[in-house]
Amino acid sequence: MAITVVGSVAFDSIETPAGKRERCLGGAATYFSLAASYFTDVRVIAVVGEDFGKRQEAVFQARSIDTRGIERTAGKSFFWEGSYLDNLNEAKTHNTELNVFATFEPKIPEGYSDSKFLFLANIDPVLQRKVREAMPEARMVAGDTMNYWIKDHRPALLEVLKGLDILLINDTEVRMLAGNSNLVQAARAVMEMGPESLVVKHGEYGATLFHCGENSERTFRAPAMPLSEVVDPTGAGDSFAGGFFGYLASQPEITPAAYRRAMFYGSVMGSFAVERFGTERMQKLSREEIDQRFMKFRELTHLD
Amino acid sequence: MAITVVGSVAFDSIETPAGKRERCLGGAATYFSLAASYFTDVRVIAVVGEDFGKRQEAVFQARSIDTRGIERTAGKSFFWEGSYLDNLNEAKTHNTELNVFATFEPKIPEGYSDSKFLFLANIDPVLQRKVREAMPEARMVAGDTMNYWIKDHRPALLEVLKGLDILLINDTEVRMLAGNSNLVQAARAVMEMGPESLVVKHGEYGATLFHCGENSERTFRAPAMPLSEVVDPTGAGDSFAGGFFGYLASQPEITPAAYRRAMFYGSVMGSFAVERFGTERMQKLSREEIDQRFMKFRELTHLD
Repeated sequence: MAITVVGSVAFDSIETPAGKRERCLGGAATYFSLAASYFTDVRVIAVVGEDFGKRQEAVFQARSIDTRGIERTAGKSFFWEGSYLDNLNEAKTHNTELNVFATFEPKIPEGYSDSKFLFLANIDPVLQRKVREAMPEARMVAGDTMNYWIKDHRPALLEVLKGLDILLINDTEVRMLAGNSNLVQAARAVMEMGPESLVVKHGEYGATLFHCGENSERTFRAPAMPLSEVVDPTGAGDSFAGGFFGYLASQPEITPAAYRRAMFYGSVMGSFAVERFGTERMQKLSREEIDQRFMKFRELTHLD
Repeated sequence: MAITVVGSVAFDSIETPAGKRERCLGGAATYFSLAASYFTDVRVIAVVGEDFGKRQEAVFQARSIDTRGIERTAGKSFFWEGSYLDNLNEAKTHNTELNVFATFEPKIPEGYSDSKFLFLANIDPVLQRKVREAMPEARMVAGDTMNYWIKDHRPALLEVLKGLDILLINDTEVRMLAGNSNLVQAARAVMEMGPESLVVKHGEYGATLFHCGENSERTFRAPAMPLSEVVDPTGAGDSFAGGFFGYLASQPEITPAAYRRAMFYGSVMGSFAVERFGTERMQKLSREEIDQRFMKFRELTHLD
């Protein structure tokens, strides 16, 4: 079933030990929708400026992603500049220009309103909530957030969490959100804020899926692939989310086994994302390549 | 088949968020041999002082561990004092007294010399090498080391590595030893120093097994158990090593599947070790409990 995603479509200037790229297409909604597009139909809600042209549009078109919800407006698109020179696990931000995102008022095209799956990528929780409320037919809602919203916009974020089925965040964020350094305790505390399920991303060590209530025994750990070269870590988490939620949305029924496979597909998409700069790798995959890597992940972790 | 282990048998004073213990029985060889004793016969080579009495001896006896190689000498046993108040993943050392360990000259009892499996726990590489040379019949040799030997005793350590089949170290150590921050590249570089296989321990994220040569495709990742309470992390790595190597030594043939199960048993023993202070938990397990947790690890990571 189709997923609607709201989030940033942006330009990124990135420097890593492998090199440098100026103003490549990026943004959480971009990585997410490219990754999810290998599993299901994807519809994007975002805002871009005049610098978003045919070349960028074509990236979405090539993956049949619905861009009717990408509003074009006067000004420049969201821009981020960062580097990973000392530590591939953590970006150092040099510059963030919100540009057209500063006054973003998400508008939902009519054709999107029947989406049963909704992903609220990392943006202002006030906007996340508006989109969630404007899409009452969504029956499974997942979302992401970041340290900035956790620290300085907590009340608005807590409102969003109440309406989430699944939250996907990283280790540092779950501990910060819960105010607890033990992962299991922190996960429980965060699920009490709303989401029934929580995916904690551990970067190069994989990710853990927690459930609350009667499924709390069903904790699941997916590995990350040990990679001999990481070209650009940007978008790995959003690509994970796209693979994870895209796979779930493609399933006739969301069973515990579907959740486990979704975790693997998330890891698979994250492992592809970092192999090239920006969205390069995410643009040109095949489902066969994806499933081959899925089997590699299975061999990496399975006893038999 | 029997394992001989050389390493420290010590007293530890430990403070963690869960409490404080004074002078409990510890040391790498103690944790290792207790963990391995659930899988195979274990023989210890170490030195202790007059403070090592019947109560400590009884801990080894209860697990049928051969202590003929524990030399008793005038003076006090090795003593370590540390805390984990800020960070459960890293001990803060307050005091280390080598005591009788300062002049330790390992002596191998005659009854040990037919051991086919030898584990060189984290001690001075000069001593590790002496023991290795004194046991030419050992056909599988594994070992551990730490940042101190990597930084300040590199030539002696490199000599030890040449004679190892398996090295077990943590993330920081493998990167330091190789001078490379990429895990896969660092693992390859370390295996070129001697060991055919390398186990990199990731603390709460599990461990990765690398092989070189024709088995290099057989990388395997074992998870750690997400635990809602870690009482005392001391000895988790040594208990991992005991479970891992103990299981290997118990197998009629060391196949790739045996290696994978050994990784799981290592993780299982590490997860038990941290549930109580010191070696408390390691002293009183049953093989049934161990295999139940093994199945939990399988459920935690397996798709079907």
